[in-house]
Amino acid sequence: MREFQFPDFKQALDFVNRVGTVAEEQGHHPDFFLGWGKVGITLWTHKVDGLTESDFIMAAKIDRLTRS
Amino acid sequence: MREFQFPDFKQALDFVNRVGTVAEEQGHHPDFFLGWGKVGITLWTHKVDGLTESDFIMAAKIDRLTRS
Repeated sequence: MREFQFPDFKQALDFVNRVGTVAEEQGHHPDFFLGWGKVGITLWTHKVDGLTESDFIMAAKIDRLTRS
Repeated sequence: MREFQFPDFKQALDFVNRVGTVAEEQGHHPDFFLGWGKVGITLWTHKVDGLTESDFIMAAKIDRLTRS
């Protein structure tokens, strides 16, 4: 799980929504943890019980979101 | 943690947003798990390491959301 910190709940929730939009576009959905000022994202492909190309693509796209 | 099931990711994310709006109004924020078609909500007041009135109010309001 990769953790991301935010100054409040609203910004953490906004990030979940932005990653959620990308997940819908990709048809590949991470698991999220959302707490006050904190988001955790876990990438995993349950079908193969491991990481696939889709996970690496999502990881790169999430990483790009954190820079914009 | 209470678990809620949804037919897809989008509806699960919508539920997180609706509970998030209530949490902001109440100034009391649960921890969320969000996966495909699944939301988990944990109510806890870290300051007292237990449940407080705010948790019960949030639980009732979340319960009401699931009926609307």
